[in-house]
Amino acid sequence: MPVLLAPEQAPTLHELLAEANTVGLDCKPADTSSSFAIRIRGLGSLLSAGQDEISFLSNPRLHDQLLQCQAAAVIMTEEAYRALPQGDYPYRVVLCSQPYLLYALLAQWFDQHRLERLEHGIHPSAIIADSAVLEEGVSVGPHCVVEAGARLGAGTRLGPMCVVGANSVLGRDCLLHARVTLYHGVIVGDRAILHSGCVLGADGFGFAPDPRQGTGGWAKIAQIGGVVIGDDVEIGANTTVDRGALENTTLGNGVKLDNQIMVAHNVQVGDHTAMAACVGIAGSTTIGKRCTIGGAAMLSGHLTLADDVHVSGGTAITSSISKPGRYTGVYPYAEHTDWQHNAAVLTQLAQLRRRLKALEKTSGNR
Amino acid sequence: MPVLLAPEQAPTLHELLAEANTVGLDCKPADTSSSFAIRIRGLGSLLSAGQDEISFLSNPRLHDQLLQCQAAAVIMTEEAYRALPQGDYPYRVVLCSQPYLLYALLAQWFDQHRLERLEHGIHPSAIIADSAVLEEGVSVGPHCVVEAGARLGAGTRLGPMCVVGANSVLGRDCLLHARVTLYHGVIVGDRAILHSGCVLGADGFGFAPDPRQGTGGWAKIAQIGGVVIGDDVEIGANTTVDRGALENTTLGNGVKLDNQIMVAHNVQVGDHTAMAACVGIAGSTTIGKRCTIGGAAMLSGHLTLADDVHVSGGTAITSSISKPGRYTGVYPYAEHTDWQHNAAVLTQLAQLRRRLKALEKTSGNR
Amino acid sequence: MPVLLAPEQAPTLHELLAEANTVGLDCKPADTSSSFAIRIRGLGSLLSAGQDEISFLSNPRLHDQLLQCQAAAVIMTEEAYRALPQGDYPYRVVLCSQPYLLYALLAQWFDQHRLERLEHGIHPSAIIADSAVLEEGVSVGPHCVVEAGARLGAGTRLGPMCVVGANSVLGRDCLLHARVTLYHGVIVGDRAILHSGCVLGADGFGFAPDPRQGTGGWAKIAQIGGVVIGDDVEIGANTTVDRGALENTTLGNGVKLDNQIMVAHNVQVGDHTAMAACVGIAGSTTIGKRCTIGGAAMLSGHLTLADDVHVSGGTAITSSISKPGRYTGVYPYAEHTDWQHNAAVLTQLAQLRRRLKALEKTSGNR
Repeated sequence: MPVLLAPEQAPTLHELLAEANTVGLDCKPADTSSSFAIRIRGLGSLLSAGQDEISFLSNPRLHDQLLQCQAAAVIMTEEAYRALPQGDYPYRVVLCSQPYLLYALLAQWFDQHRLERLEHGIHPSAIIADSAVLEEGVSVGPHCVVEAGARLGAGTRLGPMCVVGANSVLGRDCLLHARVTLYHGVIVGDRAILHSGCVLGADGFGFAPDPRQGTGGWAKIAQIGGVVIGDDVEIGANTTVDRGALENTTLGNGVKLDNQIMVAHNVQVGDHTAMAACVGIAGSTTIGKRCTIGGAAMLSGHLTLADDVHVSGGTAITSSISKPGRYTGVYPYAEHTDWQHNAAVLTQLAQLRRRLKALEKTSGNR
Repeated sequence: MPVLLAPEQAPTLHELLAEANTVGLDCKPADTSSSFAIRIRGLGSLLSAGQDEISFLSNPRLHDQLLQCQAAAVIMTEEAYRALPQGDYPYRVVLCSQPYLLYALLAQWFDQHRLERLEHGIHPSAIIADSAVLEEGVSVGPHCVVEAGARLGAGTRLGPMCVVGANSVLGRDCLLHARVTLYHGVIVGDRAILHSGCVLGADGFGFAPDPRQGTGGWAKIAQIGGVVIGDDVEIGANTTVDRGALENTTLGNGVKLDNQIMVAHNVQVGDHTAMAACVGIAGSTTIGKRCTIGGAAMLSGHLTLADDVHVSGGTAITSSISKPGRYTGVYPYAEHTDWQHNAAVLTQLAQLRRRLKALEKTSGNR
Repeated sequence: MPVLLAPEQAPTLHELLAEANTVGLDCKPADTSSSFAIRIRGLGSLLSAGQDEISFLSNPRLHDQLLQCQAAAVIMTEEAYRALPQGDYPYRVVLCSQPYLLYALLAQWFDQHRLERLEHGIHPSAIIADSAVLEEGVSVGPHCVVEAGARLGAGTRLGPMCVVGANSVLGRDCLLHARVTLYHGVIVGDRAILHSGCVLGADGFGFAPDPRQGTGGWAKIAQIGGVVIGDDVEIGANTTVDRGALENTTLGNGVKLDNQIMVAHNVQVGDHTAMAACVGIAGSTTIGKRCTIGGAAMLSGHLTLADDVHVSGGTAITSSISKPGRYTGVYPYAEHTDWQHNAAVLTQLAQLRRRLKALEKTSGNR
C-alpha cells in the first residue's frame, strides 16, 4: 500500500475530515482527548494501513481486524466502537454512522490531490474544429479530435486521444480518460467520468430484410437518433452505448456503468441505476430507477423493468418485471461429471413430470 | 425527434421516394388525388413524427397508433391501409409491401445527407507510409496511421485515429468510424462499415504447454494466418475478430456483427449471417449462411452450424447443429428465493430420476 | 496458406530446427538418410502445407491426413511415425515427443522474421514527457503518449497510439500493439504482449450509497490502488484489468488472457493461469495457479479458487472452490420448443420433489 503524500503535504486528521466533502455526514472523535492533529499521509485497509494512514471498518465481519490494525486512525460506527474490547489501540477512532461513505469521500480527497497535478490546457497536437466551443478551464489532451459544433463545458478535461464528434456536448467538469469516443450528436451532462475505450453513439444494430440483395440480404437502418446522458454518470472502460434508431438512447442522472457493458439502441435507464461489468441490454428496453444489474446479466429487448429491481449476476431477463425485488436465473455449477449426469435429465423434465403424474394417478395421490 | 433538414433543403415526398434506393420496391400513393409535393424534413415513429415528417407502420400491433399519428405521410401495407377505419387523417399514405425496408432506405437517405457534409481529403496529421496505396476519393481522418503496403479502395473514408496495418486492404466505399484497428494482413471487401474500437486481426489465443518454462508454462503459438472479410459487412463497436493460426478467419458477404462480439481464430461465418451484441464464437467453428445468433450467445470451438440456424440470446451451443431451426438453452429467471429452491433440486436431478424409476417399478407403471 | 519467405530467404530444415528456440526439446530426423537441406518457406496444416512448407501432427485423430499431406516435412511423434503405413511419402519426417510445442516454436520463428522488419525508433509524432525514461532500444510508434515518470524497459516496442500513463512501468522486450492504454501507476513485467484496445488500470467499480444525493445516490470510491502484472503475460484485444481500490490488482507470471475479458479490482490471478475470451471476474476474487477458465465463464466476487481448477466455458462460479478439478454449469440447449417444455418444469422442481417424496411415502419406497 503506497503512502500517497509526502509528510509535509499530508493534512492533519482534523483538516482531512474538514476538507473532504463531509457536509451532512456525522463524524467526530470517539474520545475528545485524542489528538486529531496527527498527519494522515494515506488510506488503507485495516490490515495494511500503516502508522500514518487512516482506515475504516464498514463490514462488521472484519471487526476482529481492529485488534491488529496499526493505522493512525480508524473510522467506525458507534456500535462497532462499543464492541471493541478494552485495550490500548494505536489508532484514533473516528465515529461515523456511514463509515463506507466516509471512506469513499476520503479516497476522493486523496485522488483529487493527484488529479490536480494533471496537465491543464489545450495540447498543441489536439485538433479542434473552429466551430467547437470550449468553455472556461477546459483541458484537451494530446492527439484529441473535437469536431465541428461540439461543445465542452467549463472545467471539462479530455485525456489523450479522445474524439468528440460533430455537435456533441459534454457538460461541466467532466473527466474523459484516454481514448474515449463520442460519435456525433451525443449529449452528456455535468461531472461525467468516462473511461478509456468507451464508445457513445455508435449505430444501433438495425437491419431490414432486403430480398433485392439476394436471399438473406439485409438493408441497413441508418440510426438517426442520438444518445442523451444525465449528470453524474460514470461509464466504464470499453463500454458501448449505441445511438437510437429514431429517438434517443438515454441514461438518467447518477447512472453508473462498469466496464464492457453493452447498451443497445433506444434503451432508457432510470436515475441512479448501476450495472456491473459485461451486462448486455438489448434494444428498446426500459429500466427503472435505482435498479442494480449484476455482472454478465443480459436483458432481452423491448422489456420494461420497474424501479428498484435487482438482477443477479449471470441472469437472463427475458420478460418484463413490474414488481421490485431480486431476480435470479443462474445454472448451479458442479463438478463436471455431476453436472453431466444432472444436465442429461434436464432435457427430459417434461417427460419426468408426465411420468410422475401417471404414478400419482395410479397411486391415487392426486 | 429532431427535424433533420431545413425547409429549403427538404425534398418533396415524390422526390424522396425517387431518390432513395427504392428500385425494385413497390411504393405508390394510396390515393392518387393526394399531393406528394409536400416537403419531408425528417423521419419519425408513428407517435413522434411531426407534420413535416414521414413515418411507417411495420408492426401490425401498432396499427392503433395510425389513429393518432400526425405525420405528413405514413408508409404501410395495402392490408394495413384497408383495415384503417374511415376518417380524416392528416397524412398521405404510401403503400408498400415492405414498409420496414422502405423505412430503412429513407433513413439511409436522410443519414447520407449528413455523411456528405463530412470533411474529405487526407488530414495533415495522418501518417501514411510511402508504400501505401490510396485510390481515388479516399479520405483519411486526423491522427490516422496507414502502414506500409496497405491499400484503401476508392471512396473509402477513415475517421480519426484509425490504424490500417501493414499490407492490409480495404475495398471501395468503406466507412471506418473513429479508432478502428486493422492489424497487418487483414483483407476487407467493399462497402464495409466498421465501428469505433473494433479490432480486426489481433492474435488468436493459442498456446502450447511448454514444460521447459516450469510446470504450467505456455509457449505462444504465433498466429500467422489472416482475416478475410467479404463485401457489405458491418462490424460493431469494440468487436474483435482474431487472425487465424495458420489459415484465415473469414466473414462472408453481408455479415452483420453488433458490438462487443468476439470471433476467435479460424472461425468461418457464412454470407448474411447476423449476430447480436456480446456473442462469443470460439476457435475453428464454422457457421452457415443466413444464421442469426442472439445476444450474449456463445458457441464452443470446432463446431459446424448449418445454414439457417437461429440461436436464441444467452444460449450456449456446445455441439454441432446440422438441421436448420431455432435453438435455445436459457435458464428461466425467477424471484430469487424461488430460484434458490428450484436450483437446489437441479443438482439432484439424476437422483430424482432414479427414485422415480424405482417407484415405477414398485407400482408396476413400467 | 501464404508461403511466408522468398526462396532465397528460406532456411534449410536443418537451420530452422537449429535456430528455433528448441533447446531442451528432442527433435531429429526419422530417417538419417533423408535430406534436411531442403529449404522451408513456411508452415501449414497437414492438408494445406505445400511442397516447401513444414507441417505437424499433434492431434492423433488427424493421422489419416498424413496419407495425403504434400508438405516438405512433417513433425510427429515416434508413435505416430510407427503407425504410418508403408509407402512413399513426399515429406521428410521430424520426430519430436511434443509436436504441438515444436509447431509453436516454428510459428514464432517465422513470425519473428516479420517482427524484425517493423520500424524502430521513436516516431516524431509521439509525445513523451521529459521525465519519462526510455531504456535502450525502445520503439515508440506514431501518436503515442508517454506520460510523466513512465518507464519503458529495454527493447520494448509501442505500436501506434498507445498511452502509457504517469508513473507506469513496462519491463523489457514488451510488445504493445496499436491503441493499448495503461492508466497511471500500472506495472508490467518483461516480455508482455498487449493487444489493441486493452485497458489496464481503469477505475474499479466502487460506489458507496450517499443519501445526501437523494434516494439511490452514489458516492464514487476513488480507486487508489494499482495494477501489477508479472513477466511473460499476454493480454488480448479489448480486455480490461481494473486498478485496485486500495491495494493492487495482480496477474502472476505467464498469465494468458484472451480478448474482451474483464478483470475487476483487487482480483489476484496466479501464475500460468489462462482465460479464454469474454470471461468476467468480479472484484476481490483470487484465482490459483495453472487454472484454465473457459470462454464466457463468470466468477462472482470475493471467491477463492485453488490451483489447477478448470472452469468450463459459459459456467457461473458463485462460490469458492478448494479442490482441483473441472467444474461446469451450462444449460443444455435444445430445439426451441423442446427447451420451452422442459424449462417450464424447471421452475417447479421443488414442487416436483415434494410430490415424489409424497409418492414414496405412500408406496413405502422410503
